[in-house]
Amino acid sequence: MSKKIKKINAAILIIGNEILSGRTQDKNVAFISNWLNTKCGILVNEVRIIPDLEKTIVKNILHLSKKFKYVFTTGGIGPTHDDITAKSISKAFNKNYEYHREAYAILEKYYGKKKFNDGRKKMAKMPKGAKLIYNPSSAAPGFIIKNVLCLPGVPLILTSMIENCKQYLKKGFKVHSKSLNLYTVESNISKNLGNIQKKYKKFVEIGSYPFFRLGKIGVSIVSRSTSLTKLKSVNNELIKLVKLKKIEILKL
Amino acid sequence: MSKKIKKINAAILIIGNEILSGRTQDKNVAFISNWLNTKCGILVNEVRIIPDLEKTIVKNILHLSKKFKYVFTTGGIGPTHDDITAKSISKAFNKNYEYHREAYAILEKYYGKKKFNDGRKKMAKMPKGAKLIYNPSSAAPGFIIKNVLCLPGVPLILTSMIENCKQYLKKGFKVHSKSLNLYTVESNISKNLGNIQKKYKKFVEIGSYPFFRLGKIGVSIVSRSTSLTKLKSVNNELIKLVKLKKIEILKL
Repeated sequence: MSKKIKKINAAILIIGNEILSGRTQDKNVAFISNWLNTKCGILVNEVRIIPDLEKTIVKNILHLSKKFKYVFTTGGIGPTHDDITAKSISKAFNKNYEYHREAYAILEKYYGKKKFNDGRKKMAKMPKGAKLIYNPSSAAPGFIIKNVLCLPGVPLILTSMIENCKQYLKKGFKVHSKSLNLYTVESNISKNLGNIQKKYKKFVEIGSYPFFRLGKIGVSIVSRSTSLTKLKSVNNELIKLVKLKKIEILKL
Repeated sequence: MSKKIKKINAAILIIGNEILSGRTQDKNVAFISNWLNTKCGILVNEVRIIPDLEKTIVKNILHLSKKFKYVFTTGGIGPTHDDITAKSISKAFNKNYEYHREAYAILEKYYGKKKFNDGRKKMAKMPKGAKLIYNPSSAAPGFIIKNVLCLPGVPLILTSMIENCKQYLKKGFKVHSKSLNLYTVESNISKNLGNIQKKYKKFVEIGSYPFFRLGKIGVSIVSRSTSLTKLKSVNNELIKLVKLKKIEILKL
């Protein structure tokens, strides 16, 4: 990958035993990565999935927040005993873990004073100094502290909140991509593809991904770059290769 | 989580830009974790997703293979230029990256001498001393070197190979689990749940996961333990709580 398209990077930290045990299929990585990529020009360079353990959360937050421009966490900000993300992040950054006044008010209004019990109140507790990421679907806000943005684990809720992260993010270069879906096998083109990648290695990243479709085997060639011109040049070379090898292109 | 159910642990290292960019939805984490959990009594304690970069792969392999009993990698063992997992692992463990005689023979037989081109030959290259993980669906084998098991990224192929990992794995204690699906909100039971978790913290891990079903909100309470007796005790306490709070149970 070229330095140009690495400019603004991020990591995702998925917190939750249910993902690690295989009970729940994570969907947040693909969604967040894709959103950051296409809407913000930010590239996710690492993802970690870890259990609901304070020590593990603290260690990973400290490591990732130093290494990457932004860190997105998902999970562990609900009302139950296994929701320890906010507390652990407070510890990591040596901040008080306390009620956020606005979050408290939002939740009290949403539930009504009578139904605003201890579990629900817990969702207003955050590291001191956190700023809110509003939640239009179920009220309980996420938050940002330093360069760490904390979102819930439930994909439907997370999706509804993601646009509210934008105000806190610097925009990177937009990364353009082009896909070419070929009815061939990887090994038929791997040598030529390697040569094209070598030629453009500073500007374009070329990936090759096998697929199965209607009983036939194929390969998707995905090129990504911040430069549309270079991307076009790579595409022209690929088309030349496809013609030379008499490979059928799958139009989607 | 108790020490008893942590006995044999593993990490998964997903290697591939296509997962990090959000282009491809990973399915291997859930599948491998669930298989290890239910079939081998092995718990996945950490997952990392990283790009196809040699330096990054080397670093993560060295770190995870020291920290965990087993490491499973997926992706990067195909025929194209971006498939660099086997080479990177050779480097990490300071082993020669060379043709594995049996893998070479398997692939040569599968493709036929004439069609056995350089890209395909590359799939027979591994760290010296690797043992094969056979592939019943598309021939190209995975391999194990030290405590690292390397599998392909395509879920259909990986699934077909997983049983062939078993011979290399020590079996852990079987982890049993019980689910209780309740039509309630987390905050209605969070305090009691926290108390039950505290009481059984050495033996049973209790997780709480919201769900939406047919327009209604619910919570799945999942208890996991190596001890069936303790699991039953927790379940009895949960049933008591459900009755006390007059919560409807969803039978699946």
